[in-house]
This record gives sequence, C-alpha cells and structure tokens, in this order.
Amino acid sequence: MKNTVNPLSNIRIVMDHTSHPGNIGSAARAMKTMGLNRLYLVEPQRFPDAEADALACDARDVLEQAQVHATLDQALSGSVIAAGLTARRRGLQNPCLDVREAARRLIEVAATQEVALLFGNETYGLSNAELARCQYVIAIPTDSAYTSLNVASAVQIMSYELRMATLTAPNSPTDTAEMAPLEDIEFFYQRLEETLTRIQFLDPAHPKRLMPRIRRMFARTQLEKEEFSILMGIIKQINLFTKSKVD
Amino acid sequence: MKNTVNPLSNIRIVMDHTSHPGNIGSAARAMKTMGLNRLYLVEPQRFPDAEADALACDARDVLEQAQVHATLDQALSGSVIAAGLTARRRGLQNPCLDVREAARRLIEVAATQEVALLFGNETYGLSNAELARCQYVIAIPTDSAYTSLNVASAVQIMSYELRMATLTAPNSPTDTAEMAPLEDIEFFYQRLEETLTRIQFLDPAHPKRLMPRIRRMFARTQLEKEEFSILMGIIKQINLFTKSKVD
Repeated sequence: MKNTVNPLSNIRIVMDHTSHPGNIGSAARAMKTMGLNRLYLVEPQRFPDAEADALACDARDVLEQAQVHATLDQALSGSVIAAGLTARRRGLQNPCLDVREAARRLIEVAATQEVALLFGNETYGLSNAELARCQYVIAIPTDSAYTSLNVASAVQIMSYELRMATLTAPNSPTDTAEMAPLEDIEFFYQRLEETLTRIQFLDPAHPKRLMPRIRRMFARTQLEKEEFSILMGIIKQINLFTKSKVD
Repeated sequence: MKNTVNPLSNIRIVMDHTSHPGNIGSAARAMKTMGLNRLYLVEPQRFPDAEADALACDARDVLEQAQVHATLDQALSGSVIAAGLTARRRGLQNPCLDVREAARRLIEVAATQEVALLFGNETYGLSNAELARCQYVIAIPTDSAYTSLNVASAVQIMSYELRMATLTAPNSPTDTAEMAPLEDIEFFYQRLEETLTRIQFLDPAHPKRLMPRIRRMFARTQLEKEEFSILMGIIKQINLFTKSKVD
C-alpha cells in the first residue's frame, strides 16, 4: 500500500465537454475553497478564456495547472475509480450513491490512490457511454420540481462533501470558552432568587414555576465564566439600588 | 403548537447588500434546485436585472417573488431565528456552528416557525452589527489557504444541507416551544440596556463590550415567548423599584 497523503490531493475533477468557460472558472474557485486543485478538462468549448479567469478570482492557479485532454480515457488515466455525477436516476446503470455516502467512500480510496469525478456538459450531462465508464454514479438530491443544478454548483457541492468527509473531528477546542462551574451557577440562582423576592417579582408564598423556568433557560445557555461575572455584577447593582427602598 | 409544514417553505434566504445581480440569479437557481423559494433582498445594488434573470435560468419565478427591503430589520421581521453565514471564526461572537449541524437545528425549528438565513455582501460579508443580530453564526469549512467562497455558492451549500436535513429528519415533528420573535428580542435588549444604564451598571460613556456580550449569551439561549415575558417582567419590576431613587 502507498503512503497516506491528503486525500483531496488524490482527487481530480474532470469536466467533460463544458460549453461555458464561466462554469470552468466558477468550478475552479469552488474546488479551491474546499482544498481541491486538480482540474481536468475534456474538450472544453473555450479554454483558456477571460470569462473563466474572471470567475475563478484567486483560483486562477487551478486554471493554469488544469490539464486539457482530447478524450475522457486520457483524463481518467491513472485513476482507480471514476465516479460520474448525474441528475438522472435511471434503471440501467451502475449503483447510484447519494453524494454524501459517495464522498465517504471516495475519500477512503483517495487516501492512497487516485480518484476521478466526472461532470458532464451543461445541457446533456454525461452520455450513457460515459456513465458506463464509471464505477459509481452519484446523484445530488435535487427537488423533483426543478433538477437543473448548474455544473459549477454540482462541483461545489461535491467538493464540499469531499472536504466534509476528510474533517472527521468535531468542533475544534479553540471554539470552547471557559465555562462557569456548576457551583457558581447554583450560587447565581440563589442570589437571583433572593433578589427577585426583594423586588417583589417572586412571591415566596406562591413561587409558581418561576425559578424552574429560569433554570431551564440558563441551562440551555451553558454560561461561560465571564458571563457569570456579568450576571453577578448586575444582581449586585440591583440590590445596591433597591436596598434603601426595601429595607 | 402550530401545524407542521414543509420546513423548507418556512425558510427565507436573506441576501444583504448584494453587489452583483448575477449572484442573485445564481442564488435563486441554487435555492430552487433544493426546494427553497423565498428570497429576501436587502438593498441590492441592482435588482431586477437582466443578468440576474439570465443566471436564474428556470428559477425566474423565485426572482419575481423576491421581496426587496430597505433594512435588515424589515427582512428579518416575523422570523424567530436569524442565522448568519461567515467565513470568519472570531473570538467574541455567537456560537459558531458548522453548516451541517446548523441545518439540522434550523430544520427542526422551521417545521413550525419562520427562520432567516443571512448572506452578506460579496466583499465585506456581514458586519459585526449584523452578526450580532444572529442567534447562530454558521461557518462553511473552507480551506484555510483559500476561504473566498462565492456568495451564491454559499447559498447553494446551505440550501443543499437544508434539503439533506429534511431528507434525513425524523417524520414526527419534535416538540419545539414557541420562540420569541426577533423584534421582541430586540425590544428586550433595548429595555435591558436602558435599565442597566439607570442602575449604573452600564456607563453609556464607556459601554465596553457589555451589550454585545449579553446579546451573545441570550443568542445561545434562543428565548421562548414565555421566557421573554418573564425577563420583561423582571425589567419592569427593577425599574419600578429603582425609579424613586434615580429620579
């Protein structure tokens, strides 16, 4: 087995007989935002092209490194899996995977070997002959009332799912602020209850469900340490201002 | 509890200060392929526009039904959650969700109540003030080497994840409490700020980051209607008790 690399670097996006250069540029940008950079073009109608450059924005390097091939065979050469995107879910074809499940499987393979993803022409999609070259056929679940996904949008969704499949880890620890310990939160509830009683919002003889409701609300919040300090500061100030009136 | 509907019909896509009409058209097409059709535009630079029509293809009906608003407040009115898309993951902001987790949560709420998704300007994204209006900030996990996702592509990915979330959601609606509408929550912040100023916890000359911090804390909470009433009741009572002392 070969060494493991970043699987995204083993994935090529193959655009087949693309008509509009703008779609090639948008696809390049879509790929680069998701960490993909290997674009293969089979007989594009116009390439290179100023419109492709314009829509690529700062992903022009993807266009500059793009390989242009005369046949699909050439573009697939060296890859171990070809997977074709289609809007059609027809009877006579290879197993049709949804894009998420497909991304999971392709990323596994791409850890060590080359994978190709095929996107057909804007109007005709992939031909039956081209789909027959694919081990997988991938369907993006469009609304049945309007299935006409733009080809660069299809590249965007597929690239996004491939990236998501590589990111197995949950939220990074930097997202987590320091939380208030539970004993502080209990202390806050206690002081709040005293204060609400003092300002006659809470009647200890008829407390109803007020404190349980407030607990439930703050339980959802998961108070951070600094937020706990702010709340305690507010309570202190309310008490300072109401002391003379109540006492 | 309100009746359950197709959650996608309770979701509005809000494009804020969009510069390029082509992006509005592409976003409309992206939405419609995923079964979304409610587009709200806040001060678009050019709309309606031939370029938007051209890129919308057969999603022109989405453009024709689009609502154009002068302010973000107007565009958010009636929704119980606002979620903003951002490329930035900064320190002091609302909890940052990945797009998949966000889609799951939003679809649950959208089964019974209105949800707004905010997409900022192509160059500047959403301002800090706009992000402060959002209960959720959603990050699409772009490659750190190139984070410049096109705004219509961001709409495409978000719409796709929302659709995927509806396809995988359990059939029975979850028991979601009725939430406070955003205009009520803004009113609460406003009254709270006045009250904190009155009791001299907040110094208007040196507000520091107090209100943004409080907004962030309550944004996580997702206030329910009854909780909003409790909080307004507490504020009223504080004011009643402090009035004689301050005035």
